[in-house]
Formats: sequence, C-alpha cells, structure tokens
Amino acid sequence: MYIGIDLGGTNIAAGLVDSNGKILVKDSVPTNSTRPTDEIVADMANLAKKLIKSSGVSISDIDSVGIGCPGTVDCKTGEIIYSNNIPMQHYCMADEFKKHLDLPIAIDNDANCAALGEYMVNGNEVSVFVMITLGTGVGGGVIIDGKIFHGFNGAASEPGHMTLVSGGNKCTCGKEGCWETYASATALISQTKEALDSNPDSIMHDIVKKAGKVSGRTAFEAAKQGDEAVKQVVGNYVRYLADGLVSIENIFQPEIIAIGGGISKEGEYLMEPVREYVKNNGFNKFMPKTNIVAAKLFNDAGIIGAAMLTRQTGK
Amino acid sequence: MYIGIDLGGTNIAAGLVDSNGKILVKDSVPTNSTRPTDEIVADMANLAKKLIKSSGVSISDIDSVGIGCPGTVDCKTGEIIYSNNIPMQHYCMADEFKKHLDLPIAIDNDANCAALGEYMVNGNEVSVFVMITLGTGVGGGVIIDGKIFHGFNGAASEPGHMTLVSGGNKCTCGKEGCWETYASATALISQTKEALDSNPDSIMHDIVKKAGKVSGRTAFEAAKQGDEAVKQVVGNYVRYLADGLVSIENIFQPEIIAIGGGISKEGEYLMEPVREYVKNNGFNKFMPKTNIVAAKLFNDAGIIGAAMLTRQTGK
Repeated sequence: MYIGIDLGGTNIAAGLVDSNGKILVKDSVPTNSTRPTDEIVADMANLAKKLIKSSGVSISDIDSVGIGCPGTVDCKTGEIIYSNNIPMQHYCMADEFKKHLDLPIAIDNDANCAALGEYMVNGNEVSVFVMITLGTGVGGGVIIDGKIFHGFNGAASEPGHMTLVSGGNKCTCGKEGCWETYASATALISQTKEALDSNPDSIMHDIVKKAGKVSGRTAFEAAKQGDEAVKQVVGNYVRYLADGLVSIENIFQPEIIAIGGGISKEGEYLMEPVREYVKNNGFNKFMPKTNIVAAKLFNDAGIIGAAMLTRQTGK
Repeated sequence: MYIGIDLGGTNIAAGLVDSNGKILVKDSVPTNSTRPTDEIVADMANLAKKLIKSSGVSISDIDSVGIGCPGTVDCKTGEIIYSNNIPMQHYCMADEFKKHLDLPIAIDNDANCAALGEYMVNGNEVSVFVMITLGTGVGGGVIIDGKIFHGFNGAASEPGHMTLVSGGNKCTCGKEGCWETYASATALISQTKEALDSNPDSIMHDIVKKAGKVSGRTAFEAAKQGDEAVKQVVGNYVRYLADGLVSIENIFQPEIIAIGGGISKEGEYLMEPVREYVKNNGFNKFMPKTNIVAAKLFNDAGIIGAAMLTRQTGK
C-alpha cells in the first residue's frame, strides 16, 4: 500500500492508496501556507500516520510515501527548488519528512502527479498520455511509456506556457501570449466580465446576481439558456482551448488528452466543439487520432498520482 | 557499416556511413518525382549498390539500409502512409526496396531522420534533443533517450504546426496561425517582400537586384548594412522564431535545441537575439536551461540520420 499526499496552497490532502490506484481512506488538514515549512511537513507526516492508524494497517505495510508539491521539484533529491504558493526555496522536503516518518519517499510537481494519477486510473496504459488542467492557470503533465516526462532538467512539462498569441496577453510568468492567459478558468472569467460590461441586457447578469460572483460557469450557463451574445464568449473560449490542444496533438500525438479542472465539468457542451475543432485542424490526417476526454478523478488525481510515484513503469 | 538514403523532392541523396555517423562516401541522383514510385525506389537501390561497389566493400559488410522519406511513415511496416511532394499513398516502400537489395531496412520521416543525424553527431548523448529546421516550412524532430519520439501513432513531431498566433495566417495544413507561417524561410521571404513594398528607399532593393531574387538572406544582409526599416523585419522574425522556441522549451525542456536550414547560416546574428529572448521568457527560472545551437550537418543530417535508424538506443 502507498501513501499519497497532495500539498496544496489551502489544504494538505492525503490518502492511503492500493496498488491499483484506489483510495482506501483519505483525509485533509489546512496548509496554513505562511507558517514555517517544517511545521507544514510535520503536519503532512502526522496526517499520513493518522491515515495508517485509522485504517488499521501497520507502517511496515506501506511501500512508500509520495508527495505532490507546487513549484519546481528536483525529483532525484526530493528538494523543492522553488515554490511560490507555499514559499520554499531549495528546501529538502524528503529529508525533513523522513525525520517524522522514515519510509521510501518520492516527490514530484503537483500537476505531474495529477497527470500520473489520471493516467493510472483512466490512461488504459497508452504510450503517450497528456493531462491538461484548467484552473487558475493551465497546468499539465505528460506521461510517456508509463513514466512522467520531465525533460532533461526536471522542469517539464508546462504546456500552459506555450505561446498561443505571439505578442498577446501578459502572463504571470513574464512572457506574452501564453496559452493559460486565454484558456484558464481565470481567463474565462475575465472574458466573461468583459462580455458582462458590453452586454447590459444579457441574462448573465441574473446568473451572476444569483450565484453572487462571476465564475468559470457563468458564460456556459448563459449560453445554454440561449444568450446569443454570450455564445460568442463560449465560442472564443473553445477556440483558444482547442487551438492549444491542436498544438499538443501536433507535438506529442498522445493517444489520450484528458481535460481536468472545474471547467471540464461542463462535459459534452465543452468537449464536443473542442473535439470537432481539433479533429478538423490537427496536422495528422492519415494516422489514428488523439482521443480528447474529460478527466475523471478531479481532486483525487493528485493524491493517487503522488501515491503511484514509485510505481511508474521502469522505475 | 550502414547505407543512409535521403529521399527528397528534387534529389535522392545517399551515403555509406560508419557506426560513428561519419559519411565515408556519398552520391545523388535526380528524383524525378512525378514518375512511378517503383522506378524511384529502383534508383534508390541502384544508388546504394553503386556506393557499396565504389567503396570496395561487400554487401555482407552492410548492417542495414535506412531511408528518410517526406510525409507520414509507418516505421513499423516501412509503409509510406501519405506523401505530398512525392505522390504516395499506402505505398510499401520497404517491400519494394527489398526486391532490389535484400538488407535489413528501416524507414522514417525525413525531418525525424535529420533530427537523429544531428543528435548522433552533435547531440552529446543528451536525454532530450530537439531539431528545428527552417525551410519551406518549419520541420522538426524530437529525440528522447536516444530514440526518435513518434507519439502513439508514428505521426509526431510536427512543432511547425503549433499555434503561434490563434486566428492568424492560414497555413498549408488548413489551420490558422501555425508557427511555420511566421518562422519558416517562406514566411521570412513574404515579410521581406512586404517591407520592400513599403520602403522604396531601402538598400534591400539593391541587394535583391544583385541577387536576382528575394531570399531568406535579403533582410539579414540589409540589416547588417544598417538599414533601419529592415531591422524591424529581422526583429519581428526573431520574435516569431523565439516565441515558438520558448514553447518548445516550456513543453520539452530539451537540453539542446539545434536550429537547421538555410537561415541558421546567419549564425550569431540570428542566434544571439533568439537565445536572449528565450532566456528571458522561458518559464523555467531555477533549473539548468536549454542550450540553443546552430545545426552543423546541413544536408548531410538526413543521410546520417537515415543510416543510423537501426542504431537508435534501445532498438
């Protein structure tokens, strides 16, 4: 059995996971990200111990602990090179964790873990699998032959920072025109707010009033109710998302691209036009095509992927 | 020893190559691409036999024959699924070639072969290597752990068809905004022609008159001579090229990106600003960075890579 820990900016989520990637029991505690990192790591270890105890297994039954962490991770040493959300710089998380719970440990970037988790459960052992998560940014992970693809330096893959519009919107990374500035949930909310301002009669205003805020769902909900002005917002968003997915397809030719994050819950209303665009615009016209699917694990992907870090093929 | 054959739209080029990727002897014949493909393949085999004979080795000294071919290739069966330049559709090239010269044979896409050739000679055995060729289009190949990366279906990688400007220039592939419509030699020539039209006093007009045509060199030559209007053309081109290279870096984190094709002969005048832009705009700020270099083999890359197809690590 395996412990998977998903270290987020708000919560530390952890689970006891079997060798098939099934969560047997899970729990979470607040991260309180501004406190000393040693305290956060102590709480991560305590949460792991609590899961072990509550499920009635012994520590010797646990094969390994895996941690998914935001930022740049050196997987070989278990060092967090840099993280912004939970402030860390050259922090040896593996060593610190082992002081509390001395088990084999593996650490990787949280988006990579989510991709691995989704692959393990929904990847059907395909040779090339890409997961794209539409959230505050556009995160991603690439699984090649059952292993997370890291590039030569451990910093891959960041598909959200492909250029989608050369010279376009300024991204938080410093570059202009990154895909995530057009296709993230944050971007969709901005696009929706612009449409709200220029369409005072749109039914979106009622939806926002009822929900109390503009969200990634606002435009989709209004469009489903037949609001013509807003269909343009959804249409543009689909185009931005799909144009980046075509890039992913043309570069990686993955057998599966899984789309995760809250927006993916729009289901076929989002996926159908996205698939249609990618089908019509992909470079490959003669070989089998990429299958674009909605992710299935949602928040559990990070826990499962972290737990499965030591079970990657070939490791 | 190995035979490498680079099947181009104009010429069939072939070489006898040693196990270090060094060409011992090479030769070429015209392709005459509109004749029956069986005749072209017969000439490819005859050229291989001629090389073997002229170098004084026997057929039993040849380990394998490799062929680099434009279009979509099924590497497992040696079938050309589709090629536009040399019209082929579901053509079993391996079987046809073996009728003339019965040796172990491997066939791959020509851009993939060029990438493998460049990697074998200049790749220093790095774990992730990308070759980008700036020609009529923007071609590319990705080498991961010593092997050509093909995606799940054999159709990877086509970085020239990443979206660089969503909704931008129409590409020959049918999609809008592909990188190659901004960063290929063809694109640079169009950008140069536009600048010629709007700058009747530019020294470019003299350069074109002397050379007899507008080429990928025209703008660079004028810019080097201090033509301010044209510096803008070169600056924009550098930006387009570099914006795509940042995408490649952010996705693959290759240790080396090698830039080939005629434009790469501009050397540091092109490479220095490209490197600067990628350095300042790459997402990875904390791990070792991608090294961007000019390719070294030029036209020989395809022959060498084809010859080395059966020598890829792990094969």
